[in-house]
Amino acid sequence: MPPAHPFDFDALDADDDKLKEECGIFGVVGVADAANFVALGLHALQHRGQEAGGIVSYDPGQGFNSARRFGYVRDNFTSQSLMQTLPGELAIGHVRYSTAGSKGQTQIRDVQPFFGEFSMGGAAIAHNGNITNANALRRELIERGSIFQSSSDSECIIHLMARSLQRDIPARMEDALRRVEGAFSVIAMTRTKLIGVRDPLGVRPLCLGKIGDGWALASETCALDIIGAEFVREIEPGEMVVITAEKGVESQRPFRPQRPRFCIFEHVYFSRPDSIIGGRSVYETRRQIGVELAREAPVDADLVCPVPDSGTPAAIGFAHESGIPYGMGIVRNQYMGRTFIEPTEQIRNMGVRLKLNVNRALIEGKRVILVDDSVVRGTTSRKIKEMILDAGAAEVHFRIASPPTAWPCFYGVDTPQREKLLAATMSEEEMREHLAVDSLRFISLDGLYRAVGEAKGRDASCPQYCDACFSGEYPVEPSDQIEQGFRLKAAE
Amino acid sequence: MPPAHPFDFDALDADDDKLKEECGIFGVVGVADAANFVALGLHALQHRGQEAGGIVSYDPGQGFNSARRFGYVRDNFTSQSLMQTLPGELAIGHVRYSTAGSKGQTQIRDVQPFFGEFSMGGAAIAHNGNITNANALRRELIERGSIFQSSSDSECIIHLMARSLQRDIPARMEDALRRVEGAFSVIAMTRTKLIGVRDPLGVRPLCLGKIGDGWALASETCALDIIGAEFVREIEPGEMVVITAEKGVESQRPFRPQRPRFCIFEHVYFSRPDSIIGGRSVYETRRQIGVELAREAPVDADLVCPVPDSGTPAAIGFAHESGIPYGMGIVRNQYMGRTFIEPTEQIRNMGVRLKLNVNRALIEGKRVILVDDSVVRGTTSRKIKEMILDAGAAEVHFRIASPPTAWPCFYGVDTPQREKLLAATMSEEEMREHLAVDSLRFISLDGLYRAVGEAKGRDASCPQYCDACFSGEYPVEPSDQIEQGFRLKAAE
Amino acid sequence: MPPAHPFDFDALDADDDKLKEECGIFGVVGVADAANFVALGLHALQHRGQEAGGIVSYDPGQGFNSARRFGYVRDNFTSQSLMQTLPGELAIGHVRYSTAGSKGQTQIRDVQPFFGEFSMGGAAIAHNGNITNANALRRELIERGSIFQSSSDSECIIHLMARSLQRDIPARMEDALRRVEGAFSVIAMTRTKLIGVRDPLGVRPLCLGKIGDGWALASETCALDIIGAEFVREIEPGEMVVITAEKGVESQRPFRPQRPRFCIFEHVYFSRPDSIIGGRSVYETRRQIGVELAREAPVDADLVCPVPDSGTPAAIGFAHESGIPYGMGIVRNQYMGRTFIEPTEQIRNMGVRLKLNVNRALIEGKRVILVDDSVVRGTTSRKIKEMILDAGAAEVHFRIASPPTAWPCFYGVDTPQREKLLAATMSEEEMREHLAVDSLRFISLDGLYRAVGEAKGRDASCPQYCDACFSGEYPVEPSDQIEQGFRLKAAE
Amino acid sequence: MPPAHPFDFDALDADDDKLKEECGIFGVVGVADAANFVALGLHALQHRGQEAGGIVSYDPGQGFNSARRFGYVRDNFTSQSLMQTLPGELAIGHVRYSTAGSKGQTQIRDVQPFFGEFSMGGAAIAHNGNITNANALRRELIERGSIFQSSSDSECIIHLMARSLQRDIPARMEDALRRVEGAFSVIAMTRTKLIGVRDPLGVRPLCLGKIGDGWALASETCALDIIGAEFVREIEPGEMVVITAEKGVESQRPFRPQRPRFCIFEHVYFSRPDSIIGGRSVYETRRQIGVELAREAPVDADLVCPVPDSGTPAAIGFAHESGIPYGMGIVRNQYMGRTFIEPTEQIRNMGVRLKLNVNRALIEGKRVILVDDSVVRGTTSRKIKEMILDAGAAEVHFRIASPPTAWPCFYGVDTPQREKLLAATMSEEEMREHLAVDSLRFISLDGLYRAVGEAKGRDASCPQYCDACFSGEYPVEPSDQIEQGFRLKAAE
Repeated sequence: MPPAHPFDFDALDADDDKLKEECGIFGVVGVADAANFVALGLHALQHRGQEAGGIVSYDPGQGFNSARRFGYVRDNFTSQSLMQTLPGELAIGHVRYSTAGSKGQTQIRDVQPFFGEFSMGGAAIAHNGNITNANALRRELIERGSIFQSSSDSECIIHLMARSLQRDIPARMEDALRRVEGAFSVIAMTRTKLIGVRDPLGVRPLCLGKIGDGWALASETCALDIIGAEFVREIEPGEMVVITAEKGVESQRPFRPQRPRFCIFEHVYFSRPDSIIGGRSVYETRRQIGVELAREAPVDADLVCPVPDSGTPAAIGFAHESGIPYGMGIVRNQYMGRTFIEPTEQIRNMGVRLKLNVNRALIEGKRVILVDDSVVRGTTSRKIKEMILDAGAAEVHFRIASPPTAWPCFYGVDTPQREKLLAATMSEEEMREHLAVDSLRFISLDGLYRAVGEAKGRDASCPQYCDACFSGEYPVEPSDQIEQGFRLKAAE
Repeated sequence: MPPAHPFDFDALDADDDKLKEECGIFGVVGVADAANFVALGLHALQHRGQEAGGIVSYDPGQGFNSARRFGYVRDNFTSQSLMQTLPGELAIGHVRYSTAGSKGQTQIRDVQPFFGEFSMGGAAIAHNGNITNANALRRELIERGSIFQSSSDSECIIHLMARSLQRDIPARMEDALRRVEGAFSVIAMTRTKLIGVRDPLGVRPLCLGKIGDGWALASETCALDIIGAEFVREIEPGEMVVITAEKGVESQRPFRPQRPRFCIFEHVYFSRPDSIIGGRSVYETRRQIGVELAREAPVDADLVCPVPDSGTPAAIGFAHESGIPYGMGIVRNQYMGRTFIEPTEQIRNMGVRLKLNVNRALIEGKRVILVDDSVVRGTTSRKIKEMILDAGAAEVHFRIASPPTAWPCFYGVDTPQREKLLAATMSEEEMREHLAVDSLRFISLDGLYRAVGEAKGRDASCPQYCDACFSGEYPVEPSDQIEQGFRLKAAE
Repeated sequence: MPPAHPFDFDALDADDDKLKEECGIFGVVGVADAANFVALGLHALQHRGQEAGGIVSYDPGQGFNSARRFGYVRDNFTSQSLMQTLPGELAIGHVRYSTAGSKGQTQIRDVQPFFGEFSMGGAAIAHNGNITNANALRRELIERGSIFQSSSDSECIIHLMARSLQRDIPARMEDALRRVEGAFSVIAMTRTKLIGVRDPLGVRPLCLGKIGDGWALASETCALDIIGAEFVREIEPGEMVVITAEKGVESQRPFRPQRPRFCIFEHVYFSRPDSIIGGRSVYETRRQIGVELAREAPVDADLVCPVPDSGTPAAIGFAHESGIPYGMGIVRNQYMGRTFIEPTEQIRNMGVRLKLNVNRALIEGKRVILVDDSVVRGTTSRKIKEMILDAGAAEVHFRIASPPTAWPCFYGVDTPQREKLLAATMSEEEMREHLAVDSLRFISLDGLYRAVGEAKGRDASCPQYCDACFSGEYPVEPSDQIEQGFRLKAAE
Repeated sequence: MPPAHPFDFDALDADDDKLKEECGIFGVVGVADAANFVALGLHALQHRGQEAGGIVSYDPGQGFNSARRFGYVRDNFTSQSLMQTLPGELAIGHVRYSTAGSKGQTQIRDVQPFFGEFSMGGAAIAHNGNITNANALRRELIERGSIFQSSSDSECIIHLMARSLQRDIPARMEDALRRVEGAFSVIAMTRTKLIGVRDPLGVRPLCLGKIGDGWALASETCALDIIGAEFVREIEPGEMVVITAEKGVESQRPFRPQRPRFCIFEHVYFSRPDSIIGGRSVYETRRQIGVELAREAPVDADLVCPVPDSGTPAAIGFAHESGIPYGMGIVRNQYMGRTFIEPTEQIRNMGVRLKLNVNRALIEGKRVILVDDSVVRGTTSRKIKEMILDAGAAEVHFRIASPPTAWPCFYGVDTPQREKLLAATMSEEEMREHLAVDSLRFISLDGLYRAVGEAKGRDASCPQYCDACFSGEYPVEPSDQIEQGFRLKAAE
């Protein structure tokens, strides 16, 4: 008998056909019961990772304490009995999304923050991003006698810190991060310091907030909102901040300066619409994408309908710009979860219908514009189209709020292998035929840049964002991947 | 040390300030693995009751089997190992919402369907509604030697059936239901029959679907959609249908005919927007309420913003009718649940902020119209108003998609006691002051009737719907409540 | 995939080859936190039933409360959070062993005490024994409109009480028990009274203790010891005691007097050796059985070795009488439990070796007398013999501290069907050959009677005990069984 | 509200007043499904550690896999679904007892085996014993950049291995163990090799068995018995064996030879009576201790009664030698466990009575000799004495099967601090007065040595065993302890 194991509904549901952020990070210093604030912050960042979460806190009397749990923050880090084991005024935390490969085998020791005891005291780190030379670093560290406890690329950082010749922990962290290639936003803590760092390109977000006499670091501003912290500013690409309750925020620039390349997909899908990123409202950007899309790819129709929930802001923008009425043609079941333990065949076969239902009375006989944020494999788009047609729609027009996703992300996002990406092998028209819809249009790369405020569109000579998933232009060479056979665009 | 127990977040979150449907029911006959279909149907009806669920199935070889579980359908009734214990082509199920009083003490034996073994074989019943003479019936049955196993009013039905002098189960059911006062939609099963009944007023919904060679009964059509069943018709008020795989649907009229009084609040809030009820799309009705509201209570403003998620259709209608832009000014955290085990103080104090966040960039400096479906205690409305003002809104105008809720429901809905209802003690203007908003307007009772298609509004001499929660006019006397001291409007 | 379910180790381990008591009962009145005392008493009676336990308590302020749990008393009824839900100075409880047939299907509703609300107030009952006319009673009660909630024969009693015409609960209980045939010791409670009853033959034990100002009823005296209660006396066969904190113990004789027939197997195996039953020490009786056995069936050997743990007292007596040294030739693993969830093949095949190991150094080269309490199927005896021979024993002699078990018990004990009993189909010599041992001797029925203090042995005309499992003479006709095809000895 | 946490019954029950072995280890190579055999072996070694267990296996296709669980082996490592995750023909495992200090804080990462990935492949180790210079080693390793994941002294070994300059794993292990001081029996594994090592003094046991074409290593022979392995020999003090399926057992001697000092307390209490250790039957040794004790400290009495279960063999020996009858005066409740979750006051106060009951009928009026294996704090001895006197014993005489325990063990055993040991502060007569018994006698150190076969008793110039707990003569200096303030006998 094969073992019973959870069945991943991503294999079939509406959220499957998305790229997945792998992490959210949060830290706070200078407030009583810091771990409680971290728990709230992580709850607000749950969309960035749902598989597991961890918190480390430090209290002078009780030292470092940590807790790691599979499942949602709200199901674990809200109980008194657990939170009482995490005392102190300094704490950091992490939520993680499991990557496809390791799923079902993830062990609790893979859950961050990672902790290391050094001769000058302990440190914990939480990492959002991906280290593109992790394999090489790991081999080198093992050769020297380091023992890895997890399968995570992020563990390299703490081992590099342990072996640094520097005498204090922030200096060791600089030392370590200079050996690291790739994308990283890191929050770390010592017994007295909260530390935040962004890689020189600033691929992943990280922001600073003020709460009472203390400070907070968070992946997104929505996590500052939940704890009632005031948004101060973003940590800048290549910046390292060392924060103590006493001295406040001290800024350093440990890396060679580079032109920033913030991830444009954070605007399209990853971040929450109520966050401010790169000085821009995510909601407003998405709405503006809808506006651009209505200009670029107008179509005569009766109804603009979002694919819930992520397509909503762009659909609002599209409806507003086009003048076509906006309506909830698809209704989401809010009691849906992500995984099932050894589900029945019936459940396996339900797929997207477990989560979405068509509002037949609204759709029937109408020419419908469906606005979705992206098309990855295209599997869900097909199912939604079928549901809409079954409900009696006269025409179905897809409008996609991002350009075709043709390349995998190696900077902290879970993407299918390139050959699984619909846009890697088909033209827009081929995709339209594949999906069998009346029309299918993606926003242009320039249109997307305009929506994020670059009036002249994309600067092809030196793009203002990381848009590798659309363009195949990787700002940091994915060396581990190349070693494993990945072929860059230039090599095709 | 006091015992650790779950903390009910309804005491503080955004969903608290709502009336709560207490049940959803579903049954199917004539399809293999009927219990799997019931599980799916109950999943689609989860919004009608989240505390617990139960399924009974019948298989000629293995007899009746049942499973009752606390928690969501998706967390229990999706696993092979449980569903294999529920074989057969005939099954019924129930999801329940716990009423405020019994919360924390609900025992698994209170979870329906109830089962009884009679001399001519077993029967199981699932009930949506409330029996208004349950106390008197219970006393009478105990006096005669019946032993009650639950604290549920619905258990009376099965005991009345057990004592009926009729020789077959449908006849016993008629016999029993003729003794019962109040609102009820009931789904029952014997070894061969699926039975559905609605009370003469038809207060609670019940509809019939066709799936392959079999049949389904469901509280709402959205539950037919999920299993791929075709919506045939509603069971009519006062109708009893007896369905077998062989003979199909046989209709009876066991009760004295009365003019129907369907619950109007099903349109306002309880039912899912993608359901068709009373021949009307719930979504369209809600959108139309928004339209009526914009006509009745216009206001000059910059943004129409729904209180998610139930205010959304009315907000769309309001925005459309008024021409004021529609936008997501409040964002909902989709990882929020309903209960917490011994939560920290911090969590207790968070309240609605755990679930909702303001989209500050959109709200700031704007005159905002918030569209919500109802105001019950008013506690959440206050908190949302504060969040909106904190985010820098210039003005806040509430528009409520139902009339003031001034009376409790005794027909299967969980309502606070009358003195806790804001509208029971305050006028509209007093409520506006209490909430401290720039304006507050409820839709008129006539406006609501117009939105549900009664062009001339409410027929005061004989209302077309049960609107007791707004009007205080109870179509069935709540005799148990009167015995316990409740005073009718006429008696005030 | 077949469902995962617990694997019952009784199917293979050393305890399988035993008869199983199905219940232990305990009650207390007149002490604070009565349920805590009940929990302790049930813990001391755990050997009488390990599958599940339940407690009902009554507190004037909070009414009746109950808890039922699968598993050991110590794993459930020791936590503050559960026990705080069971307040009051009056409580009763029950531990149950599942019968072979219902195993794996036992539902929590089958777990006693059973509770019924009558017009004059509630009552709860806990039953040890078996009702031999339960099927007939159940049919009759269902015909009249009673709804059974469990598959337990004991539930008949509470329904009979509910329908009694008497006006107080003790009188209703008398009324009910007069309709019941079979063996029963019952403990019941109302809001003020603790009630104990033994059937007229007194087949199952029940004793009375005094604790402070309160009183206790228990299956065995060892349960009085654990709570520090003083053993007062046994409840007599056919006696009913009604105990209140105020008036103490009032005795009644509701049944027609009969000559008592206490279960002799309680002395052989069921009861704990530290209990006093029928005025006799169980330990001393077992030791005396060993003495009688050494006289009846002496053998020249080097070592007397008990089959742990139940064979120990008889082995001590045998060694003492024979002068042959006593030694621990078999060692029990104290970390063994009874059930496993979907165990590996390896575990399934281990059987008795998971629980017992031979003390090879002691056994090797010796002529060994193994003293066991009984032989039921003989499966374990075979395995133990093989282990002993594998360890190098020169000879193996079995001495059994009970006569051949040739008939099933229908009075509250779990016995295999008659054809599975080794002694039902084989003579002593055939059994010896089947087990392939050097000698096998059972104590004679007269020897057993002498050991329990009947100097003249068994009175064949009117036996002093119920010994139906050995003699096939059933003091109460097992009418349900006969209806299902069981053939009495006289009918063979 | 303080957090709910398990209540450790060792604080009050009969097993508290014992020294506790901290570990049992087991490994197997060359048999299919090796992990299943390891699980069975660990089950047989559960008496050496009940808090947690772990297994690591290696399969060429699937690499190293591991599972660590709190609780009994039987509750975790018996299910197919877990064991299927541990494929391969090579596996090792560990059961652990938590030391008093870390209790309640033990994290799953403290549970062995420990695993390390080296450049030449992975290795896992399981350790029984204690490293007396672990603190110094840990400081040194951290200074060099090693990151410790647990609070276990045993983790030093794997870090020393990681940093060794040797090119193969067995050589690295030698390298590492040469830096380690203290007592250790270690079982390790690479992808192809099973490795066993005992420290030069051979303080902890380790034995070799043959099973089919494969081999097993185990703490005790009883663990070989359960899997049906043949006992080959003990691993010798200072020996390292490297075992492969192909080449069998290769022996090495990596350490400077020393005269062995096996732990004499393994014979007194730790090991199972059915094990053979140092060529001697543990049962026979214990029985012989009883014989010696009867000679050294005879007393006129009516009954020899063991304190169950560990006093039983010595009581049998005492009874045999003295001619005084042997009897079960104390009965153990076999359904007792070790920990309770937030127990009621009543449970807390029960103490030893939850587990033991006096067989009053046997004890009453008798002069009783109680034979126990050891006296540690004396708390349980007092309670047992009281129970015996309450039951009406005429006299109580304690006979203890070990000398007074006056010194803590630092070699892998959980002992109270020295000041808590009764014998550290009282003479034998003071202890007798403290316990208020008629007589109290411990076996002499020479008598104990005679019982283990040293006809001339203890060689004071160079003792044949480690008996530091009795003599205060520590064969390896406990340097970490001295650093923390422990004073050697010489220093007193």
